[in-house]
Amino acid sequence: MTSFGPHDQPLEELFADAAFASMDDAGIAGDEIDAFYLGNALGGQTESDTHLAPKLATHIGLQGIPCQRFEDACATSSNAFKHAVQAVESGVHDVALVGGVERCTPETGLGTGEMTRIFAGASHRQYEQPTGLTFPGVFALLTKRHMHEYGTTEEQLAEVAVKNHHHGQFNPKAHFGRDTDVEAVLETPIIADPFHLMDCCPFSDGASAVLVVSDDLADSFTGEPVSVTGVGHRTDAVPLADKASLPETRAARDAAAEAYEQAGITADDVDVAEVHDCFTGAEVLAIEALGLFEDGTGGRAAADGETYIDGEMPVNPSGGLKAKGHPIGATGTAQLVELTEQLRGDAADRQVDDARTAVAHNLGGDAATTVVTVLEARA
Amino acid sequence: MTSFGPHDQPLEELFADAAFASMDDAGIAGDEIDAFYLGNALGGQTESDTHLAPKLATHIGLQGIPCQRFEDACATSSNAFKHAVQAVESGVHDVALVGGVERCTPETGLGTGEMTRIFAGASHRQYEQPTGLTFPGVFALLTKRHMHEYGTTEEQLAEVAVKNHHHGQFNPKAHFGRDTDVEAVLETPIIADPFHLMDCCPFSDGASAVLVVSDDLADSFTGEPVSVTGVGHRTDAVPLADKASLPETRAARDAAAEAYEQAGITADDVDVAEVHDCFTGAEVLAIEALGLFEDGTGGRAAADGETYIDGEMPVNPSGGLKAKGHPIGATGTAQLVELTEQLRGDAADRQVDDARTAVAHNLGGDAATTVVTVLEARA
Repeated sequence: MTSFGPHDQPLEELFADAAFASMDDAGIAGDEIDAFYLGNALGGQTESDTHLAPKLATHIGLQGIPCQRFEDACATSSNAFKHAVQAVESGVHDVALVGGVERCTPETGLGTGEMTRIFAGASHRQYEQPTGLTFPGVFALLTKRHMHEYGTTEEQLAEVAVKNHHHGQFNPKAHFGRDTDVEAVLETPIIADPFHLMDCCPFSDGASAVLVVSDDLADSFTGEPVSVTGVGHRTDAVPLADKASLPETRAARDAAAEAYEQAGITADDVDVAEVHDCFTGAEVLAIEALGLFEDGTGGRAAADGETYIDGEMPVNPSGGLKAKGHPIGATGTAQLVELTEQLRGDAADRQVDDARTAVAHNLGGDAATTVVTVLEARA
Repeated sequence: MTSFGPHDQPLEELFADAAFASMDDAGIAGDEIDAFYLGNALGGQTESDTHLAPKLATHIGLQGIPCQRFEDACATSSNAFKHAVQAVESGVHDVALVGGVERCTPETGLGTGEMTRIFAGASHRQYEQPTGLTFPGVFALLTKRHMHEYGTTEEQLAEVAVKNHHHGQFNPKAHFGRDTDVEAVLETPIIADPFHLMDCCPFSDGASAVLVVSDDLADSFTGEPVSVTGVGHRTDAVPLADKASLPETRAARDAAAEAYEQAGITADDVDVAEVHDCFTGAEVLAIEALGLFEDGTGGRAAADGETYIDGEMPVNPSGGLKAKGHPIGATGTAQLVELTEQLRGDAADRQVDDARTAVAHNLGGDAATTVVTVLEARA
């Protein structure tokens, strides 16, 4: 992956940096790649660049292979990854390049207001957008209900931000990262109650890429491979008002159940997780939906130290979306990059001890699209 | 499929009409559908509606299944279809709903100028858009080269428009359709030399849907199924300047070869074809790339009567994009709807005699993404 944060490169150059890094790592040349699965959510709106899969493929020297672009809001590149895994597992392709790229910072020429409006296009056009609901509000509603049901507090949410910023300082590719404290988080302006500015992830520019290869071929390349043992994908109702429960995030629970079943694991087997903390409250909902914490106990996980790198259940050692940054279409595969480094033991100062089984949770829109992926170290 | 043309419904209602028609035809209920594959190209830009797969699924009562949106310019829903076929064939899903929807007419509040600008986002952002190149120009360049190499004439192109408008009058769902003549086509204003207004397809509103089911289950539903025997998908270089040859449309040739090989057929076996005639010249290139006509002879196929419904090689009995209309993301699956009706013998006044083997050719962007599908009547 590239570093996340402001970049002044066009999309294709940003993506090329990630794609070539993945190819170099694996020792895979362009002519060995059978297919390209791209995640990009907003290129049409942000910079009049829609039909990006063939364009990016051409830019990195891939030609004549099938290329496709996915758009599933923030879960875009995880969904691209799911399709690549299915194609490789079923024998359609042997080597697939999967990646995501997005530019969301003022480097595009768009300010935060315009980006927020564009991004709100992922909420319900008729029932939500006209009310002024943007995504801080969407996740504020989900989180407020969790606070109501379980007594989760603003201080506990702030602890998630403190933890992920602490982790981010050990990630040289993170957008942000530094030690801070609960008081500092709570002093930042309220964006959408209960979220202060420091509860919200940034929009970032960035790209990420992975190579999906068949099990037979995995050991014939140079990089140390990890095994994809489960990919679950489910969709919940939109708008929010149509959901049976707000803080349950049903799609995440069903996607996790599917992924765990494929992998033959339970939540107890998970050593490290990257979850979709677009807002601090989203991390709380995610770690409960994944079964890593009992319902109602996710709020205190960071405050109790359990989700720190050296805690009992490390969550977002990369810094998460909160500190690592959130270039929409690139976030899903970036989670997989982080977990691959963790399973390889290559995560340096943010390494989780004895990481053998890892889970990624990537969410899109009104907690609507959710993809859960299980990666495991090869025996 | 819905009728193509101006519609005043929102996207979800337009799509629901097509989805429910497909479910009624097959006698398949919502709770029998395992997955949803959506093609929509421009919803984010045209009406701030991006994360459409979960939204449309919710609107038609599907919940809890994996939903995904594809964007591959005009080949969007054909690519969604390819992924559904792969998933069903490999056993991931048993019953998948695939469809596309788009609103492109002034019903969206956008005029032709703004739609043309938005749509040009599918060409190369740095090398083509700044020159003012929009899609009539893209296909004019491809066609001009065919005229230069093979002597194809404006009158021959106009004959394609005459044929497809003739066909369109027999299609109750077509945007346009009436008998006209070459002189009338050539009297319309030049849009991008050699194309006159009548050489260009319209932007339409519309939706289309099909159900992809496993071979084992196909006969257990009510509608008469057809067999999907091949789906080829290739991508050519963008921008146009990077292509080895302009009129060859390499991706179409390679996609056709892949689809024919899967189906165990040759071009000689094809009884009817729906091809991507966004401009008259595009039909000429397509029928050559598919091997239905020798290179250089496609220009006179319509003039010679060969591609009429009662000709030797009927092409675009639906009226094609030219007359049936072109709601971008809905076009690919609409081709499959037409061919299904042809293979069933249900195409009424536009029925091709003894249609047993059918081919769809759907192209996106700078002749970049191309999907070729072979459908056959079941024995």
